[in-house]
Amino acid sequence: MQNFADSLVAAIKAKNSVVCVGLDPQLGKLPKGIVEKAQAEHGNTLHAAAVAFFSFNKWIIDSVKDLVVAVKPQLAFYEELGHEGIWAFEETCKYAREAGLLVIADGKRNDIGSTAEAYARAFLGGVDLFGVKLTGVADALTVNAYLGLDGVKPFLGTCHEYSRGIFILVRTSNPSSGDLQARITADEGISVAELMGHFVESWGSDLIGESGYSSVGAVVGATYPEEAKKLRSVMPKSFFLLPGFGAQGGTAADVADAFNEDGLGALVVSARGIIFAEDPRAAALEMRDELNKVRG
Amino acid sequence: MQNFADSLVAAIKAKNSVVCVGLDPQLGKLPKGIVEKAQAEHGNTLHAAAVAFFSFNKWIIDSVKDLVVAVKPQLAFYEELGHEGIWAFEETCKYAREAGLLVIADGKRNDIGSTAEAYARAFLGGVDLFGVKLTGVADALTVNAYLGLDGVKPFLGTCHEYSRGIFILVRTSNPSSGDLQARITADEGISVAELMGHFVESWGSDLIGESGYSSVGAVVGATYPEEAKKLRSVMPKSFFLLPGFGAQGGTAADVADAFNEDGLGALVVSARGIIFAEDPRAAALEMRDELNKVRG
Repeated sequence: MQNFADSLVAAIKAKNSVVCVGLDPQLGKLPKGIVEKAQAEHGNTLHAAAVAFFSFNKWIIDSVKDLVVAVKPQLAFYEELGHEGIWAFEETCKYAREAGLLVIADGKRNDIGSTAEAYARAFLGGVDLFGVKLTGVADALTVNAYLGLDGVKPFLGTCHEYSRGIFILVRTSNPSSGDLQARITADEGISVAELMGHFVESWGSDLIGESGYSSVGAVVGATYPEEAKKLRSVMPKSFFLLPGFGAQGGTAADVADAFNEDGLGALVVSARGIIFAEDPRAAALEMRDELNKVRG
Repeated sequence: MQNFADSLVAAIKAKNSVVCVGLDPQLGKLPKGIVEKAQAEHGNTLHAAAVAFFSFNKWIIDSVKDLVVAVKPQLAFYEELGHEGIWAFEETCKYAREAGLLVIADGKRNDIGSTAEAYARAFLGGVDLFGVKLTGVADALTVNAYLGLDGVKPFLGTCHEYSRGIFILVRTSNPSSGDLQARITADEGISVAELMGHFVESWGSDLIGESGYSSVGAVVGATYPEEAKKLRSVMPKSFFLLPGFGAQGGTAADVADAFNEDGLGALVVSARGIIFAEDPRAAALEMRDELNKVRG
């Protein structure tokens, strides 16, 4: 199997797109028809809500699959429906991969080594079940590295073995991200985000594919263009996953500096701006074209 | 309903125990009889594995419920079994609460505000489903605050509304925790862990119960006794959740300084050391008594 970063680069070139769609369903925001059909078939149950999530996601995937390279289901929204929601998450991941899309599970998982191993198996690697090998449903996972290297190592091993990727939180898109991430370290005189960027660059050095890119990427908010520019130079070989486009205020101009000169190295996410748009396909098309203009 | 910290203090006093059992099932480590029974009834399926998890947890809970105040299921191990694993997690939480135990879901969740809201609903608050209100299955959740205040606020709101608690990662028990957490900040001249401690103290100030303790606690590794001592003075009103006892090397002497003079303020976790012991009840009893000697 191909290195994850190479798969990503190949998909971006084939589709001429750097768009990733956030699949963040919320029951109150889904089209009425989808919800009512699920209720009619399964009653007022959690399963009906999960069926509505999956139906909605299938519709979005079918609408945009030739315009986007990846989908990013946000685990929080599925976890709201408990195990039924996780069923919808799993079905969504399978459906997206069959549609030729890469799947980035947005779980921001983190724990000590032995537990991080379990997360790595859960999403990326696989589980040995009574002698049968089951494979994880995602191509990549977002990871929070507050715990340092040994909380990340198990993911790196899994990325090697299964050709998967991770995106480590570096500078997040929210207003308070600076509370910790903008703090300057006394020894290096750089921000915590930049320090994390150096970690990402170093941790990903063994996972560089033929494309020159590493399967260890970074989450960098589209809402902090100056930071993105600086972080680009810290992590030239890492793919940036940029949330915060659209609904959170990030524009195409804001993300321009997150790309390398080859027009690669960044994947821009929109969730609400596409999935809850009146016409999701038109919204994805517009976003794709806007981004292609700025990535040179 | 009672403030979470007050419930915790009441349970500690009633049971004369500060032990929390980590419920971290792994298929290969469960008693053969439990696994074979599940296989016989459900075949070689994910559901059989989930049934084995739940049966195992029930056995542990029944064995130790009068000796411990809380259980801490680690989400990673349930997520390995996908939606079936989450079913086992949910059933375990319900069973533990019926047995009079507090449930701390160890998910180390984190995200931007609107998504953190979804996590808060998923575990602590509840979901409105077709007009029916479903309540979250846990009393508290571990949270990673790399994203800063606005990623934590939704949890604080839920703690107020539903009398729940959170434990924020401050200094984790793993060897690499210092990669980021021991870095000194240029402005304050304190470690990132200590900075996080100050955040915890401030974020929890509106959630202090009649016991004088806050429902916003801190995760502080039992493996760093010197740090625990310092952090105790930074967060006098926060409960510490101390992982790393036993299998990871932390001893009763190591956690002594994590308690306040009233013998409260800390909850010590053991997972492997109890659940995979030859006699889980004896292991829990020994741990309870060892800790009661040092907490004065």
